[in-house]
Amino acid sequence: MRTIESIAELRAAVADWRRAHPGGTVGFVPTMGYLHEGHASLIRRSAAENGLTVVSVFVNPLQFGPNEDFDRYPRDPGRDRRVAEAAGCDLLFMPSVDEMYPRPTATRVVISGLTERLCGASRPGHFDGVGTVVAKLLHIVMPDHAYFGMKDAQQVAVIERMVEDLNFPVRIVPCETVREPDGLAMSSRNVYLNAEERRQAVILYETLQLAEEKFLEPGMTPGKLAEAMRESIRRAPLAVTDYAEVLTWPDLRLPEERPFDAMPPGSRFIAALAVRFGRTRLIDNRLLEIRTPAGKE
Amino acid sequence: MRTIESIAELRAAVADWRRAHPGGTVGFVPTMGYLHEGHASLIRRSAAENGLTVVSVFVNPLQFGPNEDFDRYPRDPGRDRRVAEAAGCDLLFMPSVDEMYPRPTATRVVISGLTERLCGASRPGHFDGVGTVVAKLLHIVMPDHAYFGMKDAQQVAVIERMVEDLNFPVRIVPCETVREPDGLAMSSRNVYLNAEERRQAVILYETLQLAEEKFLEPGMTPGKLAEAMRESIRRAPLAVTDYAEVLTWPDLRLPEERPFDAMPPGSRFIAALAVRFGRTRLIDNRLLEIRTPAGKE
Repeated sequence: MRTIESIAELRAAVADWRRAHPGGTVGFVPTMGYLHEGHASLIRRSAAENGLTVVSVFVNPLQFGPNEDFDRYPRDPGRDRRVAEAAGCDLLFMPSVDEMYPRPTATRVVISGLTERLCGASRPGHFDGVGTVVAKLLHIVMPDHAYFGMKDAQQVAVIERMVEDLNFPVRIVPCETVREPDGLAMSSRNVYLNAEERRQAVILYETLQLAEEKFLEPGMTPGKLAEAMRESIRRAPLAVTDYAEVLTWPDLRLPEERPFDAMPPGSRFIAALAVRFGRTRLIDNRLLEIRTPAGKE
Repeated sequence: MRTIESIAELRAAVADWRRAHPGGTVGFVPTMGYLHEGHASLIRRSAAENGLTVVSVFVNPLQFGPNEDFDRYPRDPGRDRRVAEAAGCDLLFMPSVDEMYPRPTATRVVISGLTERLCGASRPGHFDGVGTVVAKLLHIVMPDHAYFGMKDAQQVAVIERMVEDLNFPVRIVPCETVREPDGLAMSSRNVYLNAEERRQAVILYETLQLAEEKFLEPGMTPGKLAEAMRESIRRAPLAVTDYAEVLTWPDLRLPEERPFDAMPPGSRFIAALAVRFGRTRLIDNRLLEIRTPAGKE
């Protein structure tokens, strides 16, 4: 594995590989580092599906609000190198903030509509920063496939829409969330939790399990389901709900308030949560789909 | 020359050419059609500098305001084919609006700062539409070089900034404005002018000639120069000034109001005009640079 800090060098390394491997494909896993098993699973998948795998580690200041955790976001480049290499990374791209933003960017990629709710509402400007840095990284790496974890489901929806709207020549590959044994979604931010917060953090997973069961109850509606989720989170004394919503997938609109069992088969929804424990904000989600009734296929 | 209407087919044609010509470069000339000698000069330059030249003809609704001339913008696909082919175009990309925007775009490329003045002020949202469609076209064609005419100087500055900020893997090549014998800049919109308006339209060129001379007068300042330009335009009875400004180049900021001869050598400015004749709006510009005094190099 080669570690590269400069954009020009990364481009040259990818171009060299492509020249030497006509018809080969390049996979890309963009990350903010502090790599965990969730990232490793993306890297392994890219390595299995492509001849060259590029991983970027870049904590992007543009996607953090002024009162968010950019400065204290956890960083461990040494461990990132080991995790990336063990998972099958070929080129590890670790640019500095100056390399990525030699001067303040005048250009932003703005995705409207599906950024209005969930983290888009809680974190104004966040998805402009995500869209902008992902556009930059895609232009630098020029991968055939880019891998994103579904824990950040809204991010996946936003990036897929950006790629479609702007005709980026890349296929976005959403990958299943990797979880701790008790169900907590892997996240670099889990390291912020103290022991008691960590114990109670399982409430996100339990709430999504509950949502999946209740989704099937006769007469259940999107609004009632969201209310049941909020009630569930209240069972964890240290948890403060940032949002608990049920939206259409992948457009992230508020669905009509009528029973799920009256909606057409194939309709898809997302139950999405953001919950604070002290200064730490955790997110998780579950996709829900109206199945075709048994015997009616 | 092949004419292609579908994005997938255009991509395949460029990919085929690249496979057959390793190391070859692709040049791209994006246009809104109704091709004139200005466009032809861009196409000839691309053909001289690249193995494959792609020209797009697409009147982009996203960059027209609600009261602008999208519907009546002149179109002549048959003549465009002949002009493009004669100038050396290999692939002529003529997508429909539905092909480029199968649904309303949720994504926009927004370039701030250097879009605040000139056409950015006169045409709100115009450069968001330009940035968005150029991003789409660059992703579809994936050229090595893209050619733009300097008549639309602010567009060149905006696109160069977008490409730099977002790390697009392309080199933007600004090309000199092509003019009619009397100095009027070639433009598809010139066809709107009646005979008397056409005669008076030379005032744009004459005003820029005057600006270049006055720029060298001792004690001349940006504000005085802009005022002299506005006064000059008033000599054409049918002309209505939309803007006449002197800004820094390429950042398009209002310069300090002090004499040019007190500014550092190498400082660059743009004298830029937009003038209406009836419903027709014409633009033109001249770059101005503070020279190193003779004998001081």
